[in-house]
Amino acid sequence: MLSPETETVTQARARIGQYIRRTPLLRSALLESWLGHEIWFKAECFQRIGAFKARGAMNAVVALEERGERPAEIVTVSSGNHAQAVAWAGRERGIPVTVFLPASSSPIKRQAAESYGARIVLTKTRQDAEAAANERASRGAYLLHPYDDDLVIAGQGTACLEALQEVRPTAVFAPCGGGGLLSGTRLAVERLAPGTPVFAGEPALADDAARSYRSGAIVSLADTPLTIADGVRTLAVSERTFAYLKTLAGFFEVSEEDILYWTQWLTHLLKCVLEPTSAVAMAAAAQWLAGQRSKQRVLVILSGGNIAPETQREIWATSRLDRLPGTPSATGTRSPPVR
Amino acid sequence: MLSPETETVTQARARIGQYIRRTPLLRSALLESWLGHEIWFKAECFQRIGAFKARGAMNAVVALEERGERPAEIVTVSSGNHAQAVAWAGRERGIPVTVFLPASSSPIKRQAAESYGARIVLTKTRQDAEAAANERASRGAYLLHPYDDDLVIAGQGTACLEALQEVRPTAVFAPCGGGGLLSGTRLAVERLAPGTPVFAGEPALADDAARSYRSGAIVSLADTPLTIADGVRTLAVSERTFAYLKTLAGFFEVSEEDILYWTQWLTHLLKCVLEPTSAVAMAAAAQWLAGQRSKQRVLVILSGGNIAPETQREIWATSRLDRLPGTPSATGTRSPPVR
Repeated sequence: MLSPETETVTQARARIGQYIRRTPLLRSALLESWLGHEIWFKAECFQRIGAFKARGAMNAVVALEERGERPAEIVTVSSGNHAQAVAWAGRERGIPVTVFLPASSSPIKRQAAESYGARIVLTKTRQDAEAAANERASRGAYLLHPYDDDLVIAGQGTACLEALQEVRPTAVFAPCGGGGLLSGTRLAVERLAPGTPVFAGEPALADDAARSYRSGAIVSLADTPLTIADGVRTLAVSERTFAYLKTLAGFFEVSEEDILYWTQWLTHLLKCVLEPTSAVAMAAAAQWLAGQRSKQRVLVILSGGNIAPETQREIWATSRLDRLPGTPSATGTRSPPVR
Repeated sequence: MLSPETETVTQARARIGQYIRRTPLLRSALLESWLGHEIWFKAECFQRIGAFKARGAMNAVVALEERGERPAEIVTVSSGNHAQAVAWAGRERGIPVTVFLPASSSPIKRQAAESYGARIVLTKTRQDAEAAANERASRGAYLLHPYDDDLVIAGQGTACLEALQEVRPTAVFAPCGGGGLLSGTRLAVERLAPGTPVFAGEPALADDAARSYRSGAIVSLADTPLTIADGVRTLAVSERTFAYLKTLAGFFEVSEEDILYWTQWLTHLLKCVLEPTSAVAMAAAAQWLAGQRSKQRVLVILSGGNIAPETQREIWATSRLDRLPGTPSATGTRSPPVR
């Protein structure tokens, strides 16, 4: 049982309902016939800004306003979906947003945050970006962390909450980066479907959370891992998210090959654009399903669909579509990382 | 005015309604702000088999049954979406389907038709495939043509019909291959929004229909054109579809560069998988919109989302996302073909 109050996730859903999209649940008849199980996909690629991160950012911003703590400025340090989410939420609520980024970050990601109206400040290094954001926060700006924040966690949980209002799965799968999505998912399950196992998928190349889970203490990676799943390249979870992650039913480490395999296949079958990070959750589900004797109904949370062109090139460099899902050696194996 | 009875398209919609999906209309706030116009996309990538072709095939099959002419077998010669559509429609209605294909055709397309239960017969050449299908048809099988068929045309028109039930555009755009989709679209517009201009997009590298339109007589290409838009590589339209095409408001020939540009951008903005053929319609719309002085509301029919991995590689070989839509030289220019 979780000690934090599970209603924070239902409160979050009510708070952000007018801003976010209720994303569809997708299924593929072909995939289900091949695997022999029901698989429901929560398609957060169709969320505002193209990823679930819009939920957590908006929940934090509106909750601050409700408490009478509307910030004069919001700052963040992120080159990915979180930066876009904060930029979008700030614009929606009329609060200026500044994103601090190392100059080496991808121009396309900068452009995306700028499209949503954020001011971008480039720094020499990531450390400089963090220092600048902290300095600004010390002078009254609100520093919105991508996962180490109760309001962000509750917001991310609304994706699973919506899904559980429509389907009652036998297991739930989500990808693990900093742990915000999984923490919120855990809250939503506890609220609407207590007892349902929640599993994490994590790239074997970025297995800090899986090792933390097994050892019982937070493990940090020394360097940014080279996994293609760029949404889960975080170095370590936080004490806050680890408290939730400890209560999960298990972690599956997935190979780069499996991530690419499921990115191609889910793109092909669902016709929606999937970040490799989304495929991490499906790769975990496939491993689990391969060991099940009775028919299961799983919920897989697809995190988003923002993919840089260079990542698209990498995804499609070699075809994986000649091996059908469910055939031997397709999944369920723990093949060694190939990157 | 069109002489054929426009109610065939409303009849088709009623006939196939229980089999097909009512696909969503998508918009992108960013794209609309950049171009200064409303753009509504009919997303046939979410149609059964991943393309609009399911509509025409199912309409033909069910209409034959209604007339008491249920065939013992359906045959077709196609390596693309039409083959999958016929395989799917036959399986749904319990009629065996045989697809004749040259052995050189892509294994992934064969696999797709097989997934839907069709029998695949490989022949040496395309001519052999056609001869074999005709021979089978002479012995009682029904040969389902991809576009030279009134029932197929009416079925394809149901995509536009559904859209016109939700939005009243100032212009409609669709890609031109054999002309089936545009013929049906023309019928739907005449039925629900008479007077609304319908425009065709066609790759400059496969401009048989545009040249036919300008000259008033059907022009055939000598060889299969090398455009990346593999859904519109047909050599010539038919007399039947040309009768509709003559009534269009115009043709836009689009460069390979523009096809790739819009494939990347629409994938990025809409988060759905788009065949380059779908981007042909948007490239045409962009050309037209660049010359408009007042705010327009256009409907763009996205034909489908079945893309072979080798085509994905080609699409993403070079990033086009660094030039925003609506900026000078982005579109509206008639740049020379680059393939």
